[in-house]
Amino acid sequence: MLTVYHYWSSVCSQKVRMCLAEKQIPWESRHIDLFTFQHWEPSYKALNPKGVVPTIDHDGKVLIESNVIIEYLEDAFEGPRLRPSDPYLTGLMRRWVYDTEEIAHANVNMLSYNARHKVRLQSFPKDELRAIAEKCPNPVIARRFLRRVAQGVSEQEEADAYAALDHLLEGLESALRARGPWLLGKDYSMADMAMAPYLNRIEVLPRPEMVGAKLRPRVAEWWARIKARPAYTEAFSFQNPNTSDPIKR
Amino acid sequence: MLTVYHYWSSVCSQKVRMCLAEKQIPWESRHIDLFTFQHWEPSYKALNPKGVVPTIDHDGKVLIESNVIIEYLEDAFEGPRLRPSDPYLTGLMRRWVYDTEEIAHANVNMLSYNARHKVRLQSFPKDELRAIAEKCPNPVIARRFLRRVAQGVSEQEEADAYAALDHLLEGLESALRARGPWLLGKDYSMADMAMAPYLNRIEVLPRPEMVGAKLRPRVAEWWARIKARPAYTEAFSFQNPNTSDPIKR
Repeated sequence: MLTVYHYWSSVCSQKVRMCLAEKQIPWESRHIDLFTFQHWEPSYKALNPKGVVPTIDHDGKVLIESNVIIEYLEDAFEGPRLRPSDPYLTGLMRRWVYDTEEIAHANVNMLSYNARHKVRLQSFPKDELRAIAEKCPNPVIARRFLRRVAQGVSEQEEADAYAALDHLLEGLESALRARGPWLLGKDYSMADMAMAPYLNRIEVLPRPEMVGAKLRPRVAEWWARIKARPAYTEAFSFQNPNTSDPIKR
Repeated sequence: MLTVYHYWSSVCSQKVRMCLAEKQIPWESRHIDLFTFQHWEPSYKALNPKGVVPTIDHDGKVLIESNVIIEYLEDAFEGPRLRPSDPYLTGLMRRWVYDTEEIAHANVNMLSYNARHKVRLQSFPKDELRAIAEKCPNPVIARRFLRRVAQGVSEQEEADAYAALDHLLEGLESALRARGPWLLGKDYSMADMAMAPYLNRIEVLPRPEMVGAKLRPRVAEWWARIKARPAYTEAFSFQNPNTSDPIKR
């Protein structure tokens, strides 16, 4: 039995759901609502000491961190291969996965605050948010959360984040110009899968043209190829049980 | 032929040198001096488009990012195994490796600025440093570099960094209390290897007691076990060719 603790619109949860769908692995859903702060409740922190989503529980074996989880699913389950057999291609794949973590994740998270998360937090009195942050086990996330609640994300921070994402997307465009149809060449892999949810998010942030055909034609074609995969549709069709969330995608 | 582009005191270079020594892989050294900015010269950026160390070139196959490199060395070379055969243990190992990247790297880098890097940069006029930063291909690193040159690292940033490292080291202490002698139990692995260079660095930062026996007895014992390994001695014996560098460890 594989149980997956996830949040409908979390990019890392989307990535794991894409992997499960590609590999056709049956799983049971436990939705963890990040905006009622279920991820910082003691019962969830007992599974995920960082207080983040996703987490998997595979017959009692608990694992966290989406990039660790997708490699585990590849190692522990049958199904279509998402990692090349050649060590060098695997190295190139892991470099893409690493870049999504280092560059895409931090900066998409930064840009999501003013555009998406602020509206979800505005009904909470600031005192209550301070008390909630005390429950977050990770001081990096707790301090960042409190800073954003107090000051928002600045124009300078947003400019830095856009510069970082532009740099990453330029690398993507170059790689797809050099070879294709996928990031490693002929086979779809975890490199494509780890990047995809960030494209989905960028499309609903203030500068969707970053991934559009006019500015980055190869990225746009590659992104359309990903969205045409049945596993993408399956992973992104998960509905938010909280229908009053103002964010719909 | 394996060529390694590295810097003597870079934590990520030390990690790769530890891996090479553990696996007894012969390699040829190309020392890239980070404080004469060789990593931002065109010839090096052609190999490493991020302008960071280390890089490996294995018979023409070029790979960057230390955690990607150590998994590649495991996949492509014989020698002692540094990754478990069990998928779940491998997942737990990768989570440690990920934490060293996410938590240890960013914060040790932050704390190294005032303590180590500032003195190395003080002979450069600020105008020259601005021109040098233009050569850095990665806007995240270039902007951070310029901000630090202009303003240094603040007390608040240092406090946040110490909090993050304390959190990580508490996790290390707990894991080693639950099992040992290594992070995954009986076998030394990439989990230990990825963490070790950060301990070496913390010992020369202003709060070495963070990894001392009084505060964290299991961490201190584990760290002593790592330092007792011949591969540690071999990896850390690499001498800086620039003997006028004010930093000696």
